[in-house]
Amino acid sequence: LSTKRDFSQSVGHLGEDSLRVLVSSHLDKDTREMLGYGDDAIAIEIGDGKILVAHTNVLVGSTDILPGMTPSSIGRKAVVMNVSDIAAKGAKPLTLLFSLGIPKDYLISHLEEIASGMNAAARENGTYITGGDIGESNNLILAGTALGMARKGELMARSGAKVGDLLASTGPFGLTSLGFKILLENLEAPSDIEKKALEAVYKPKARLKEALALAEIKAVTASIDSSDGLAKSLHWLSRMSGIGFELTNILLSPEVTRFAQLHKLDPNRLALYEGGEEYELIVCIKPEKWNDAVEAVKRVGGVLYEIGRVTESRKIVLRTRDGRQEEIEDLGWEHFRQWKAE
Amino acid sequence: LSTKRDFSQSVGHLGEDSLRVLVSSHLDKDTREMLGYGDDAIAIEIGDGKILVAHTNVLVGSTDILPGMTPSSIGRKAVVMNVSDIAAKGAKPLTLLFSLGIPKDYLISHLEEIASGMNAAARENGTYITGGDIGESNNLILAGTALGMARKGELMARSGAKVGDLLASTGPFGLTSLGFKILLENLEAPSDIEKKALEAVYKPKARLKEALALAEIKAVTASIDSSDGLAKSLHWLSRMSGIGFELTNILLSPEVTRFAQLHKLDPNRLALYEGGEEYELIVCIKPEKWNDAVEAVKRVGGVLYEIGRVTESRKIVLRTRDGRQEEIEDLGWEHFRQWKAE
Repeated sequence: LSTKRDFSQSVGHLGEDSLRVLVSSHLDKDTREMLGYGDDAIAIEIGDGKILVAHTNVLVGSTDILPGMTPSSIGRKAVVMNVSDIAAKGAKPLTLLFSLGIPKDYLISHLEEIASGMNAAARENGTYITGGDIGESNNLILAGTALGMARKGELMARSGAKVGDLLASTGPFGLTSLGFKILLENLEAPSDIEKKALEAVYKPKARLKEALALAEIKAVTASIDSSDGLAKSLHWLSRMSGIGFELTNILLSPEVTRFAQLHKLDPNRLALYEGGEEYELIVCIKPEKWNDAVEAVKRVGGVLYEIGRVTESRKIVLRTRDGRQEEIEDLGWEHFRQWKAE
Repeated sequence: LSTKRDFSQSVGHLGEDSLRVLVSSHLDKDTREMLGYGDDAIAIEIGDGKILVAHTNVLVGSTDILPGMTPSSIGRKAVVMNVSDIAAKGAKPLTLLFSLGIPKDYLISHLEEIASGMNAAARENGTYITGGDIGESNNLILAGTALGMARKGELMARSGAKVGDLLASTGPFGLTSLGFKILLENLEAPSDIEKKALEAVYKPKARLKEALALAEIKAVTASIDSSDGLAKSLHWLSRMSGIGFELTNILLSPEVTRFAQLHKLDPNRLALYEGGEEYELIVCIKPEKWNDAVEAVKRVGGVLYEIGRVTESRKIVLRTRDGRQEEIEDLGWEHFRQWKAE
C-alpha cells in the first residue's frame, strides 16, 4: 500500500459517485443481474418465480456515527439502512449477515449493546442476523448484507417510471436534516422539535410493510428509499428511468417548517439537500393503480402521500405556490462524509 | 462511542472466538438456518431443492495485509477468502458483493488495481461482482459477501463427520507459514522456496472445482477450508462433529521440509499452528465413497490426499513414525491479527 500523499491522484478528489463509476469500469458485467448499473442492490432470478435481492452497506465509525448515538442505535441504524434498501426493491428480507470490525479498546458492554440493537431492528423487520464475522480494526465497522426475496413481476427498480405516473412518498421529509443541524451545527430547537429530530436520526425505521404492500399489487414503476436525501433520490429515479418530475409540493414535517422559521432557513432546502439518512420510500405509481396503492399502504398502517408526477422533460422542478418553477438540483450530502472532511 | 480506555472491559482482552460467542448470545436464532452456530457461513432452503449459502468476511488494511502485497493481490485475496468459504459448503458461487472503504489519500490507480484484482479472481471462479458500495474510511476495508447455491443433500457443513470416515485434503500445508516467516520475521529462504511461499501468500486460490465435484457425488460428511490454519480447522471439524481425528501424517509442501531444516524449525508446527490464510479443503469422506471421491477430484484437475481418519475420542492426534501419539492443540493465528497487536 502506498503511503505517498499525492493528493492529485488520490481518491479524496473524487466523489462517491465517481468512485463507483471507476470501480465498476473494472468489473465485468453479469447479464443475469436485473437492476442494472446505478441501482444500489442486485437482483438475480433463481428459478421457481423467485428473485434474490441483495444489498451491502458499511457503517464506518469515523464517518457514519453522529454525536450522541448510543451503541444500540448504531446497531439499529446498520440494520435499517440495509433492510430499507431491499424493501425499496419490493423484496422481503430473507436474512442478514454482518461483518464487524471492532477497535481493541472498544468496551465489551458497548459491543453487546450494538448486537442487541442490531437484533432488535432485525426482529422488527421480521428477519434475523444469521451470520457474519468479527475481527479487530482501528475503526468501528459494521458491514451488513441484506438478502431478500422478491416475486417475479414484483421487483421494484430505480428505472421504469413512465410519463404520467404519480410520484409519492410514505412520509414527510426534513427531520433528519434538523437532527444534523442540532447535533453538528449546534442550532437550538424547542424541546418537542429536538425530540422528534433526534428520534429520526437515532431511531430510523425502514418502510418495509409499505414496500411489500405496494409490490404485491404491482402498483410501482420505479422505487428508491430517501437515504441519499430527497433531491439526490429523485435524481436517481430520473436518471435511471429517463424521465423528469414536477413536484407539487415538498412534503415537510411540521417541525421542519417551524424550525426553519426560527432560524430563518429555507424549509425546502432543508428537506431537499440537507437531510438524508432518512428512509421513506419514494415511488412512482401507475395512475390506474393509485387508489389501490393508497389503500394497500393504509391497510398496513402507513400513509401514501402524492408529491408530484412524472414528466417527459428530464428536469426535476418544483411548482411554487405563485406558479413559478424552480429546478431541483442533484445535490445532497454523500452520507455523512463531507462533515468529516479534514 | 466511548473513548475511555478501560482495557479490563475492552474487547482487546477477548479473542475472536470469544467475541463471536458474545455477539451471538445477543442475537435471536433463526431455526431455518441449516449450518448452525460455529459454522462460518449460513444456509437457508429457498425451495425448489435449492439452498442459498452466504458468507461475509472483511479484509481490513491495518490487520490483513502483508508486506509487499500489491493492490491487485489485495483484491484477489478479498475475493478468494469469500469464495473459498462457500465452496467448502458445496455451494456454487451465485454472485459477489463488496462494500469498499477507502482512505482519502489512497491512490486512484491503486483502487483501480484492487478492482481489477477482484474482478479477475471472481471470473476465475466463474462468478461476478455485481454490487456493492464505496465510501471513505480511515482504513482500507474490503467487506465481501459471497452468495452461492447448493443443491439439497449436497450441502457440506463443519458438522456431520462419522467415526471411520477418512480425513482428506486437496493439497499440502505450510507454504503460507513460510511466507509469513519470510515477510514478517525476515527469515531467509532460497529463491525457489521464497517464490513458492510468496505466491501462496500473494496469489491464493479457492478449491472450488474440487469442492463442487465432491458435493455432487455426496461423498463428504464434514468440510472446512484451512483458512484458520490446519490445527484450528481440524478442531473446528472435531468440535462441530463431536468426533476426533488420528492423523497419519501432516501433509507438508516439500519447501516446508527444506525451510524447516534450514532454520532448525519443526516443520509440523509450521504447518499446524503457524500458517493459515491458505485455502485447501479439509474434508471427511465416507469410506465407501473414497475411490469415487479421488476420481471426482482428479477429473477436475485436482488431487485428494488421505491424511487421517475420524475417531471416536474427541482428541486430535498425530501418529508419529515411531508409533507415538502427539496431541494436536487448538492453536493458530487468528488471521493476521496477533502480529499487529500494538
